[in-house]
Amino acid sequence: MAPRPVYFDCDTGIDDALALVYLMASPEISLAGIGTVSGNIDAKRAALNTLDLLDMGGRNDVPVAVGAMDPLTHSFGGGVPHIHGHNGVGDVELPHTDRRPVAESAADMLVRLAHEHPGELDVIAIGPLTNLAVALKQDPSIAELVHEVIIMGGAALVPGNLSEVGEANIYNDPEAAQVVMDAPWQVVLVPLDVTLENAFEESDREALAASDSLLNQALADILNLYFDFYVEEYGRRMCALHDPLAAAIAVGQITAIRAPKVPVVVDATHGPGRGQTICDLRKQRGGPRDVEGAHVRVVLDTDQPLAPVLLERLLNYHS
Amino acid sequence: MAPRPVYFDCDTGIDDALALVYLMASPEISLAGIGTVSGNIDAKRAALNTLDLLDMGGRNDVPVAVGAMDPLTHSFGGGVPHIHGHNGVGDVELPHTDRRPVAESAADMLVRLAHEHPGELDVIAIGPLTNLAVALKQDPSIAELVHEVIIMGGAALVPGNLSEVGEANIYNDPEAAQVVMDAPWQVVLVPLDVTLENAFEESDREALAASDSLLNQALADILNLYFDFYVEEYGRRMCALHDPLAAAIAVGQITAIRAPKVPVVVDATHGPGRGQTICDLRKQRGGPRDVEGAHVRVVLDTDQPLAPVLLERLLNYHS
Repeated sequence: MAPRPVYFDCDTGIDDALALVYLMASPEISLAGIGTVSGNIDAKRAALNTLDLLDMGGRNDVPVAVGAMDPLTHSFGGGVPHIHGHNGVGDVELPHTDRRPVAESAADMLVRLAHEHPGELDVIAIGPLTNLAVALKQDPSIAELVHEVIIMGGAALVPGNLSEVGEANIYNDPEAAQVVMDAPWQVVLVPLDVTLENAFEESDREALAASDSLLNQALADILNLYFDFYVEEYGRRMCALHDPLAAAIAVGQITAIRAPKVPVVVDATHGPGRGQTICDLRKQRGGPRDVEGAHVRVVLDTDQPLAPVLLERLLNYHS
Repeated sequence: MAPRPVYFDCDTGIDDALALVYLMASPEISLAGIGTVSGNIDAKRAALNTLDLLDMGGRNDVPVAVGAMDPLTHSFGGGVPHIHGHNGVGDVELPHTDRRPVAESAADMLVRLAHEHPGELDVIAIGPLTNLAVALKQDPSIAELVHEVIIMGGAALVPGNLSEVGEANIYNDPEAAQVVMDAPWQVVLVPLDVTLENAFEESDREALAASDSLLNQALADILNLYFDFYVEEYGRRMCALHDPLAAAIAVGQITAIRAPKVPVVVDATHGPGRGQTICDLRKQRGGPRDVEGAHVRVVLDTDQPLAPVLLERLLNYHS
């Protein structure tokens, strides 16, 4: 089978870096293009981080486009340096490539790729959904052209991480998320409900550090700051595999096993629920039940832990 | 120990009827007064139903006050006849008492009782929170006078029942719920998270029907319609013990075992989250953790199933 073309939208970002290298290492898919967005760090810096990682992995064939610097209705707040570092990659200085982003915007790239691969392109979005919303506004037909949109975002039946009910990617641009959830394409939403259940432990990080690949060693370094952040919540150095889980579901190595298609509405009010992904999970007591007409699949459980799968693929990647 | 004085606020209502008879049968508390509110049925009819049940139980000493017919900001929608019947008690014709509600309003009764029993009065509220909000607006000092407010309402980490995220009691008057949650009194919130885990089964209902008490036989009759309603969701005739669980926690027969005090905000916007009780349950991974300054305890688990406890008390009640 030919690898499936993927447009990857990211805000690299520490767990973004893991997801990116995982995708580079995945023969099931082909990275047709990468767009960046402001989230963990601003979109321009995210593009440079992405280019550095691609270069280290020998993947200078993949074009990187800078996307939206600001959310749809407000200014970018500046990222989360205490989680992802001041440079987005845990304050680690990666070897810098001379390669630069393409002139095309991320939204333009997505529109172009959707037309070049009608019915085939998968979109993996692991940052705020600004670029996807801009692309949909530019050309609503992409909703029919794209095969599937896999999103790391939201919190269905668990608390949020940026507000009581808001997960960071959605909370950072609720207006964009609303556009994306309302568009008539097939979405797979990978929320905190499952990403928080997939941990990368210190022993996993040490396995990366012991690899003879400079790229894996860099990932292990980058993870240090992120691991520190999780101590308060989990009581030990580790991290949740938010973005890599969406990537692994898109690749097909991890299968969603409790994942009903249900109506999903984004709270874009300025009330206390702003940024919530309101998933209609009523009447699911008898087991997962798709709601007629719904086009967003909400992943509530997966078939196996991601960490061993991710680690195996990273350790076996030879650029 | 002297029985603790209770003001009971209800919209009787089928599970309200179970809770009422349970409270009548509980020597730990003393029903100082009952106020009614529109919810399952309108407040006037709820008062008549309550008086009929009190009369059958030989408790004509308990005054019943009619409360708010309409929520704070809009008109009462008319109740839920497919769940609670056109008369609120499952379309069963109870023997009618000649006793009538007192002239005092429910809010006035609550204010009066709070002053008569300073530091001692427990408020058990199992309907929309309109009367409590009106009382707080009339006399904010009741927040200091009342011992504790036990509320059946809300949904913390489970779906709502009247909207995706809204539980009926809160959804029916979010503005009132906001006033009640914001007031500086000690609240115990008993949400769908726990009430839906406490089932009353057909065998329990049959045990009531076989009782030689006319009151228990009436409860068994009343439950028929309610049991039908639950078939779609649970696949069998049964019901969830929403209101009785709040009553049993107030009485002390059921103990809340995972019940952190956390900030609770009611979504009173007109957005998609209207009526949600937004409970800040972040950072609870290490076990229940009270948040400093929070005064609402959210019950997420209880020590034992309610049904046997409830049934035993009803069957042993001799008026």
